[in-house]
Amino acid sequence: MDAVSIIRKKRDGHRLEAAEIDAFVSGYTRGEIPDYQAAALAMAICFQGLDAAEIGNLTNSILHSGRVMDFSDIPLPKVDKHSTGGVGDKTSLIIAPVAAAAGLAVPMISGRGLGHTGGTLDKLESIPGFRTRLTLEEFHEVVRRTGAGLIGQTDELAPADRKLYALRDVTGTVESIPLISASIMSKKLAEGIDALVLDVKVGSGAFMKTRERARELGRRMVEIGTACGKRVQALLTAMDQPLGRTVGNALEVIEILEALKGRGPADLMEVSRELTARMFVLGGLDSDLETARKRFDSALASGAALRKFAEIIRWQGGDDGVIEDYTRLPRAEHEESIVAWDEGYVAGLEAEGLGLAAVRLGAGRERLDSVIDPAVGLVFEKKVGDRVVTGDRICGIYFNDRSRLDEVRAALRSAIRISAEPTPEPSLILESIPE
Amino acid sequence: MDAVSIIRKKRDGHRLEAAEIDAFVSGYTRGEIPDYQAAALAMAICFQGLDAAEIGNLTNSILHSGRVMDFSDIPLPKVDKHSTGGVGDKTSLIIAPVAAAAGLAVPMISGRGLGHTGGTLDKLESIPGFRTRLTLEEFHEVVRRTGAGLIGQTDELAPADRKLYALRDVTGTVESIPLISASIMSKKLAEGIDALVLDVKVGSGAFMKTRERARELGRRMVEIGTACGKRVQALLTAMDQPLGRTVGNALEVIEILEALKGRGPADLMEVSRELTARMFVLGGLDSDLETARKRFDSALASGAALRKFAEIIRWQGGDDGVIEDYTRLPRAEHEESIVAWDEGYVAGLEAEGLGLAAVRLGAGRERLDSVIDPAVGLVFEKKVGDRVVTGDRICGIYFNDRSRLDEVRAALRSAIRISAEPTPEPSLILESIPE
Repeated sequence: MDAVSIIRKKRDGHRLEAAEIDAFVSGYTRGEIPDYQAAALAMAICFQGLDAAEIGNLTNSILHSGRVMDFSDIPLPKVDKHSTGGVGDKTSLIIAPVAAAAGLAVPMISGRGLGHTGGTLDKLESIPGFRTRLTLEEFHEVVRRTGAGLIGQTDELAPADRKLYALRDVTGTVESIPLISASIMSKKLAEGIDALVLDVKVGSGAFMKTRERARELGRRMVEIGTACGKRVQALLTAMDQPLGRTVGNALEVIEILEALKGRGPADLMEVSRELTARMFVLGGLDSDLETARKRFDSALASGAALRKFAEIIRWQGGDDGVIEDYTRLPRAEHEESIVAWDEGYVAGLEAEGLGLAAVRLGAGRERLDSVIDPAVGLVFEKKVGDRVVTGDRICGIYFNDRSRLDEVRAALRSAIRISAEPTPEPSLILESIPE
Repeated sequence: MDAVSIIRKKRDGHRLEAAEIDAFVSGYTRGEIPDYQAAALAMAICFQGLDAAEIGNLTNSILHSGRVMDFSDIPLPKVDKHSTGGVGDKTSLIIAPVAAAAGLAVPMISGRGLGHTGGTLDKLESIPGFRTRLTLEEFHEVVRRTGAGLIGQTDELAPADRKLYALRDVTGTVESIPLISASIMSKKLAEGIDALVLDVKVGSGAFMKTRERARELGRRMVEIGTACGKRVQALLTAMDQPLGRTVGNALEVIEILEALKGRGPADLMEVSRELTARMFVLGGLDSDLETARKRFDSALASGAALRKFAEIIRWQGGDDGVIEDYTRLPRAEHEESIVAWDEGYVAGLEAEGLGLAAVRLGAGRERLDSVIDPAVGLVFEKKVGDRVVTGDRICGIYFNDRSRLDEVRAALRSAIRISAEPTPEPSLILESIPE
């Protein structure tokens, strides 16, 4: 079974056997199959796709390239949530403490900002002292003690994915749905969870720009998880404007803390609540969504979720004083505003453009080695559908480096649309897979 | 202009600009663009293709990755012939001496056997002393002195092609017609020729199995050459059975010498004559094909072509005594036969299977580092359409290593078909591009 025959077979549109996929993935991980052959196969897959069985086998081979965690000593349902990435998407840091406070174990392995999207790890690291690099033993201990832990990917879990992802990133093969599904699911299955809720973002600020592609990705991931004996559900949620009112790491942490205190913006709360309620049902805590939603509400209203977040922060080395004192978080030196240049309704806050503007401020990475400024970002005082009169502040810009301000202002200006006609408030929860 | 954007652009079906192609090819040749990015682009091209302008630009970039020869000091039309490869395809060694004897300069850079097909260099090297590795200065001198020279590819001409071809071979991206066209034409244009005749083989023993693919390849190559100001014509010729009666290096040299003495088999002579006649017309020696065919015939009949071949052999260090004494060529120790197992007509001599059987005997390479046995091969006493009675010898097997004989016999047996019904003699010259 040589690598070239496998490449040619997929190139010509044939189905790869489990043994072929496994030989390729393990050969590649061990360095016996070179990058150029993996690049050729990845590109062939971009064109020819993979069927459900092939995707399942690929996921399995990537998963078993490393350790699979075992939380069986924790007598709670182990349930995680994963988002495909968006702008202002901070639900993980609401969901993890709420779910842990309400009786789930949440071993959450997260990512960093990618392109125009933010990353959970970057947000957490704006909390002084917070360690996202724990050993798997430390991670296990945090989850056992607090019910939730939040770390980054390690070399021990699904190492094949790390190698493949880095290759796909530089060979134009990131956008393949089969490859994305296998990449996400192999990492999530390595967490040793019982159930998983997937937040598949759809829209201009998401990686999946259309409902069809998002649905395809959601279906593939649900199929993989189900085939592996896990309970998996995907929600398609809108990502045309930023979620919540903030974009930027410390600013988002403040919004999260406000949300855990019961003062979160409606859109952020709705998405967080719907995702968490599904986690409760999949985890077996509740038998119907209505009860599960109430469980979310009461974990929040009782203050249990906020206390849980403080506990997680402490266990991961962070300063939990930030919960009452936001001045302990990094703060930008300067602030400016984008104000309404016309009277009417906010008709669009184009999320990709706004996300890239935040990256330009320093909230994300333009290059792999860029250093993030945790303090900078955007705060939206108006969202799509809101009425504005000329001069109303739509967006605050928090920054430290004035040199890029003009460029960022221009980018923001062109990502914001004001219309004379009222714009209906967009739907957030678009679809569930399975229904 | 970064490599990933170029890959993504082609992956998404867009046209690459000349500057993008050139940046990629020159970056790859210099080692700045890694193999894995070139592999991804090659695979994207397999699916999305390249238009005529892109193929032209790719050829140009590969061509200018190295030296371009200059034969302008030789006051003759410089015309070459190139074949896409077949079994028993030995026309180059008839055409080069005939054309040189009749007034053209033929600077011919040839290849080695590949897969089931034979290579001109391997055939030449069965002549004791014949050197196919000349410096470009020596090559120039041979062409200037004799009118023809026959060497292998050097590192100085189109080095990007060598690197790309090696990569395509191990990444399942050999079969792309745009990439094949650019690869062939860049090497041929580096010869510094005025005109080129292409022999595009079609059929079971060719790389292009269908008329459509062969036509597509022929058209692309003619377009490239024409765009570069060269006179180029392609003939599609049949490669369903071996050309001539021999397959195997020294055996083919004997058949070539016989042909130059006026005793060549009809099919081999027809293809050689039609190709050479086009070279005469493109080179401006003749204004019509009929006159050009007569020029071919008289160069042969006068003995001028045979003397020219002796001269080329001498100038390239070979023993021209082989011309009169075939025992100076390597000879196999053993000989066996495949005889007709039935009465009827030879209905098929499946060229790919026969070519692979010859490779198994040692006439070609099974691996890059295999050593060729120049003496071994096959001699066909019957060709498609010939009548046979049981026991008639169809094919002689000349070999040195008895260990593979059973396997080779079985392969030959299954590549030869005998039918009760008369089989029409197949057409050889199928199509001309342009017509």
